[in-house]
Amino acid sequence: MSASPSADTVFDRVAIIGFGNLGSSIARAVRKFGAVAEVVACDVDAAVLERARELGLADAYVTDPAAAVAGVDLVVICTPVGTYATIARMIAPHLAPGAVVTDVGSVKQAVIHAIRPHMPKGAVFVPGHPIAGSEKSGPDAGSGDLFEGRFWILTPESGTDPDAVTRITTLWARCGAIVETMSADYHDKVLAVTSHLPHLIAYTIVGTAFDLEGQEQRDVIRFSAGGFRDFTRLAGSSPEMWRDVFLNNRESVLEMLQRFTEDLTYLQRAIRWGEGDKLFELFARTRGVRRDVIEAKQSDPFPEGDSAD
Amino acid sequence: MSASPSADTVFDRVAIIGFGNLGSSIARAVRKFGAVAEVVACDVDAAVLERARELGLADAYVTDPAAAVAGVDLVVICTPVGTYATIARMIAPHLAPGAVVTDVGSVKQAVIHAIRPHMPKGAVFVPGHPIAGSEKSGPDAGSGDLFEGRFWILTPESGTDPDAVTRITTLWARCGAIVETMSADYHDKVLAVTSHLPHLIAYTIVGTAFDLEGQEQRDVIRFSAGGFRDFTRLAGSSPEMWRDVFLNNRESVLEMLQRFTEDLTYLQRAIRWGEGDKLFELFARTRGVRRDVIEAKQSDPFPEGDSAD
Repeated sequence: MSASPSADTVFDRVAIIGFGNLGSSIARAVRKFGAVAEVVACDVDAAVLERARELGLADAYVTDPAAAVAGVDLVVICTPVGTYATIARMIAPHLAPGAVVTDVGSVKQAVIHAIRPHMPKGAVFVPGHPIAGSEKSGPDAGSGDLFEGRFWILTPESGTDPDAVTRITTLWARCGAIVETMSADYHDKVLAVTSHLPHLIAYTIVGTAFDLEGQEQRDVIRFSAGGFRDFTRLAGSSPEMWRDVFLNNRESVLEMLQRFTEDLTYLQRAIRWGEGDKLFELFARTRGVRRDVIEAKQSDPFPEGDSAD
Repeated sequence: MSASPSADTVFDRVAIIGFGNLGSSIARAVRKFGAVAEVVACDVDAAVLERARELGLADAYVTDPAAAVAGVDLVVICTPVGTYATIARMIAPHLAPGAVVTDVGSVKQAVIHAIRPHMPKGAVFVPGHPIAGSEKSGPDAGSGDLFEGRFWILTPESGTDPDAVTRITTLWARCGAIVETMSADYHDKVLAVTSHLPHLIAYTIVGTAFDLEGQEQRDVIRFSAGGFRDFTRLAGSSPEMWRDVFLNNRESVLEMLQRFTEDLTYLQRAIRWGEGDKLFELFARTRGVRRDVIEAKQSDPFPEGDSAD
């Protein structure tokens, strides 16, 4: 069943469960960089799978996760986080001994709780999260270069087979990513600030503007280049994915949201009372952060595949 | 003093007061498109003026606004909005009969209140606001193509000399802009949503992240590609300019901020109580806004001159 791998491949055969933008990007990347010999594309949506077949992105196309994982030594779960427990339950009885399971979910503590109880003896779960993606959906939106120079975070629990962690590290590094390991708890805290809160705020402000009426709503679109536009990209991301993120990283998101609201209220009061010095002080302080982001090379114009703009 | 204009120029000689990114972009644009015969660069900062001279961006370089406007038929005020009343008072006695004064300020009602009382009989004030710019400062950051395809809003009061409005419209259209006319009141309401609130929120979240400590703060920068990065560009904008915007569009900003806060609190509650359907409903609704922005051609990757990323 599995092809004879070249000496260079890191895994023989991968099943990618969920073949949208991110899943198809992984398929493209592991093929482009010769990291896995064979790719099995799996998606419950027959139309997605058919499109993947038309694009020739995999070696096999399977709708049933249980069937997809048969005979593979690597499973990458790329579905919304809310589906993880169901998928783990479905695939567990069919995993080969020594198979490595990983994922790309934006939260990690909840993912570990959803998957670990189902893992059979001999299979290893290495939770992961690439800091790359796009608000665009479907296999057409993917790119084999998506992970070039981007961070890919792994959050293995203590006691996880170190060989499996090393192989996953090698795999994503081969695809161009900078692989980092940290605790799931720390990941969820940092990502609440760098990703979850920004998305929540972007969704909110776009919704607030959407509630304006008639000409005013149309003019918000027309004059969006003044700043609003930057939020619409985030607010165009997958609703399923982001609902699941917020439901599954509740504590960290609520904690950061509370801090944000306090800070916003402070500025609101300064505006109401005309306290220009307080506004200036904060605005001058945040300016340096932009410079730090650019120096950290995390501000490429299209790191999230937004090149169709 | 003034050069013999070609038949094609819209004005003979312009004084640009405030020669940073936007002022120098206007100098470059009016020269590139042959819209004005002569350019006088004016800035209170001698270093800025010296840099403009090194770059050869103008025909004359003057630190004193009163001296800069002598013999010009057009004045463009490009300083932070909080300086407008002072500048209007300084230049008023030296304006030639029939001179047209315009500006690029991000708020328009407060600007009219600051400038109109000082305008001498015979001079005409046409308030304006290009929806273009950049978080970068100084004459080096400017570009003659900055206004290509961007909106440029004029908010003349009723009774303003229509010839002056027509000439300003022709001028900025020549520089590539799409010129729109509306009331100052309506401008301030729409821009509160499309520009002022987004900047306030971006400043806030970057400040919130900045208050994290040690490794966590460093990791916010490193993993900023998850969404946070999009906010740092806005939060890198000029502190003086934005302080003045919020102090001078207080009512509209506070009104939109109140709506935003209510909407955010609604989502916060949904997250706390695990109400995924409420989250999904909003996230699905905002997705269409991104499509509208792209269709309105207001989502070019670098409309605000951010090409150095």
